[in-house]
Amino acid sequence: MLGWVRSVRTQKEITFFHVNDGSSLQSLQIVADPHLGSRDITFGSAVEVWGKLVPSPHQKQNVELQANKITLVGSCNPVSFPFKIKDRHSLEYLRQFPHLRCKTNVFSSLLRLRSEATAAINSFFKNNGFIHIHTPIITSNDCEGGGELFQVEVNKNQDNPHFFNVPSFLTVSGQLHLEVMAGAFTQVYTFGPTFRAENSQTRRHLAEFYMVEAELAFTESLEDIMKVMENLFKSATSHILSECPEDVELFHKYLAPEQKVCSWFNILNHVNLIFRLSYTEAIDILQDSTKTFTFKPQWGCDLQTEHEKYLVQHCGNIPVFVINYPYDIKPFYARDNQDGPQHTVSAVDLLVPGIGELCGGSLREERLDLLQSRLKQHGFKDSYQWYEELRQFGSVPHGGFGMGFERYLQCVLGVENIKDVIPFPRFSHSCLL
Amino acid sequence: MLGWVRSVRTQKEITFFHVNDGSSLQSLQIVADPHLGSRDITFGSAVEVWGKLVPSPHQKQNVELQANKITLVGSCNPVSFPFKIKDRHSLEYLRQFPHLRCKTNVFSSLLRLRSEATAAINSFFKNNGFIHIHTPIITSNDCEGGGELFQVEVNKNQDNPHFFNVPSFLTVSGQLHLEVMAGAFTQVYTFGPTFRAENSQTRRHLAEFYMVEAELAFTESLEDIMKVMENLFKSATSHILSECPEDVELFHKYLAPEQKVCSWFNILNHVNLIFRLSYTEAIDILQDSTKTFTFKPQWGCDLQTEHEKYLVQHCGNIPVFVINYPYDIKPFYARDNQDGPQHTVSAVDLLVPGIGELCGGSLREERLDLLQSRLKQHGFKDSYQWYEELRQFGSVPHGGFGMGFERYLQCVLGVENIKDVIPFPRFSHSCLL
Repeated sequence: MLGWVRSVRTQKEITFFHVNDGSSLQSLQIVADPHLGSRDITFGSAVEVWGKLVPSPHQKQNVELQANKITLVGSCNPVSFPFKIKDRHSLEYLRQFPHLRCKTNVFSSLLRLRSEATAAINSFFKNNGFIHIHTPIITSNDCEGGGELFQVEVNKNQDNPHFFNVPSFLTVSGQLHLEVMAGAFTQVYTFGPTFRAENSQTRRHLAEFYMVEAELAFTESLEDIMKVMENLFKSATSHILSECPEDVELFHKYLAPEQKVCSWFNILNHVNLIFRLSYTEAIDILQDSTKTFTFKPQWGCDLQTEHEKYLVQHCGNIPVFVINYPYDIKPFYARDNQDGPQHTVSAVDLLVPGIGELCGGSLREERLDLLQSRLKQHGFKDSYQWYEELRQFGSVPHGGFGMGFERYLQCVLGVENIKDVIPFPRFSHSCLL
Repeated sequence: MLGWVRSVRTQKEITFFHVNDGSSLQSLQIVADPHLGSRDITFGSAVEVWGKLVPSPHQKQNVELQANKITLVGSCNPVSFPFKIKDRHSLEYLRQFPHLRCKTNVFSSLLRLRSEATAAINSFFKNNGFIHIHTPIITSNDCEGGGELFQVEVNKNQDNPHFFNVPSFLTVSGQLHLEVMAGAFTQVYTFGPTFRAENSQTRRHLAEFYMVEAELAFTESLEDIMKVMENLFKSATSHILSECPEDVELFHKYLAPEQKVCSWFNILNHVNLIFRLSYTEAIDILQDSTKTFTFKPQWGCDLQTEHEKYLVQHCGNIPVFVINYPYDIKPFYARDNQDGPQHTVSAVDLLVPGIGELCGGSLREERLDLLQSRLKQHGFKDSYQWYEELRQFGSVPHGGFGMGFERYLQCVLGVENIKDVIPFPRFSHSCLL
C-alpha cells in the first residue's frame, strides 16, 4: 500500500493508522507493531506498507492490512503542516492552501466528484450523438458585447503588444463558434473554461470558470433545447449519485444536511418534465407575492437571484424553466417571437434550488434580415459579417444553451461558495499559484 | 432526412443529390422527381426530405431515399458560396473560411476525428484510474521561466489593470498544478488549452493549442512514465482507427498516401515496447551519420526537429523514446541523475514519424535540498515557495509527461500543417472570429 497517512492511533503494543491513495474516500487501516518504525508515521506523511490483507473485525471496513514492513517515503512535520489531525477545518480556512487542500478528505472528495461529473457530461453528449468541439479561448469578438472582458497581450518586454494584430480577449462563451459547427454537425457541444473580469467577490462568481455549452441545428422549439438541458442534468446527477455515493454523502452530511439535494432529485426523477413558467407568469407570481424583494419585480426587468430563488421555492423547491423573456433584455442573437405588445424572444433559463440560474439558452435568430437589424441596433454590424454569412449559406433554425459547471456542482453537492468547487479559484484580487 | 446538400446531379426525369448531417462522412443519396422542387436545391443548401428508404442499386451505399417531399430550409447561393461543387479545395484555401470550412468533407472528418480522439484519451485515463483535474488557464507563475507568455489584463477602460493584484499569464503547462494533485490522488491528468506567444508562423506552432498532461506519484523510474505514454498513444490510435475508419481513410488516401501511418502503427502494435535510446546514444548516432544537419549535433545541445526526424528514420521509421538529457538544458524540476562527467536528468521525449517530438516528460525533483539549489540557480526561489512545500509535507517520487494534442492528430492523420487540425487556429498575426 502506497499513500498518505490520514490518522494515527498508537497504543502500547500496537499502532493503528489509515492510509489513503486518493482513489476513494475510503482509507486502508494498517495494524502495525510499533517496532516496525511506525513511530515516525505522522498525519500527512507518505508511506509504503507491506503486509497481509486480512478481514477486519471492525464494521467500518471489510479488510485491514497487518503490516510487516513500513517505509516512510516522505515525512510531514506536524507543527508546520497547516492541517491538524483532530481538527475539522472550515472550507474557508482550507482555501488559503490551494497547494495542500487536496490532501483533506472534503476537498479530495470534491475533486473526485468533479472528475466524475466531467466524465458523465462528456458521456451524455457522446451517447446522444453530439460532436465535441474545442471552441477557442482567445477570441477577437466579444460575443455578448459586455464590458467584463480580459484582454490578452504579449509580455511587456516584447515589441508588438498586439500579437494577433487585432485586440483579443478571453472568451466569455463558445456559443457563436458552436453555431458555426452546428451548421455542419447538427449537434455539437463544448466544455471548457470561460472568463469574466467581473469585479465581484460574491459566493457566486469566479473570473475563470467552466461552461458546458450545446448547440442543436434543425430545431424550431425551445422544447427541444429544454429536453436536452433536463436530460443532461438528470443523467449527470444520476451518474455521480450512483458512482460516488460516499463522496456525495460526505457533502450532504457534513456541509448541507438541510439542502436534501437527493430528495429533490428523487422528486425530479419522478416527475415527467421539469415545470415550465413563462417570464410573464413568473413576474405575476413575484408581484402577487407578499415577500419584500430588494429589486421590485417588473415586466421588462431581468430576474434577480432573489426572484429566481423565490420562483424555485414557489414551485415546490425543485428545478423550473422560465421561458420567453423580454426582447429588450436579451442578446442580439436570441430569436424574435414577433409577439406583442409584450415583445419577447425564445429564451429559457433553468432555475434550481439553492442557486437560481443554472442554465441559460435560446433559439438563435436564423433569419438574416431580423438578425441584421438587431446587429445594427446594437451598433456592431461590421464585426459580425461572418456571423451573418452563417445565415446565407444553408441557414437552419437552431438553438442551444450553456450550463455553469461550478454552479452545477454547488447545486448538487450543496456547496455555498463557488471557490470551493474548483481546484484553483481565480477571482478579483486573487490568483494563487 | 435533415442536412446539407453535398452534391447534385440533375437528369431530365430524375435528380440525384446527397445530403449530409455531419454525423459521418457518408451522405444519404436522395432520388427525386424534379417536379418536387429539387431544382432549388444547390450545393451547400439545407434541406428537409421526406420519403421512403429503399435498398440502393449502387455499390457505394446500402440504402437511398426515394423522396416524396422536399423542403428547402436554407438556400445557398452558388456564386457567393466560397466552395464549389466540383473543386477539391486545398486546406490552405479552406483556412481562409474558418466559419465555413466545417461544411467540407475533409474538415468535417477532421473534427469528428478530433472529437473521437478526445473521448478516447479521456477514456484511457478514466479506465486506468486517473483523476481528471481542470488545471487553471490564468496563472501567476510562468512554469518554465520562458519569455513567450501572454499576459492577461482587464479591458483598458477599467481602473485597475491588475485585476488579480499580481501580473497574470495564460498557462504554458498544467504540470506544476498537476504535481499538487498527484500528491493527493496518485494519478492525475489534465487535457486543455495551453498558450505560447511564439512569434513563429511555422507549420508546427500555434499560439493556442491543446495539451494532454499526466502526473504519477510513487514512481521512481522513467519506465513507468514511458509505459503510460506508450499505452496512451496505442489506445487512442487504436480507438480512432477502429471507430472512424472512413474519416481516417479520407486523410490517408487524399492527404498523406505516402505516410502510411497505419502501416507503422501496425508495426508498433507488434513490437513489445517502443525503442529506447539514451540522449548520449542519440548524439553518437547523429554524429556518425553522413547527413549534413543545419545544427551540428553535439552533446549538451538540445535536439532539433531535423535531428529528431533522423533518429526516427534511423530506428526504422517508428516511434522512439530518447531518455536522460543533459542537466543544463532541462527545466529546474527535472530529477537530477547525479551522474557524471556527462551530467543528466531523468527526462524523456517521445519522437514520432513525420513530426519529431510528440511528448516530453520527466521524473520531478522530489528532494527538497536539490530542488532548492536548482531554483536558486535559476534565480526564482521566492515565487516557488508553495512548490517547495510540496516536498515538505509527504513528498513522494513522482513524474509525468505532456503530449501535444494537435501534433498527435498531425502524426496519426498525416496532416502537414498544424492549423488544419484545430477548429479555430490562433497564431501570430491571426485570430479570426
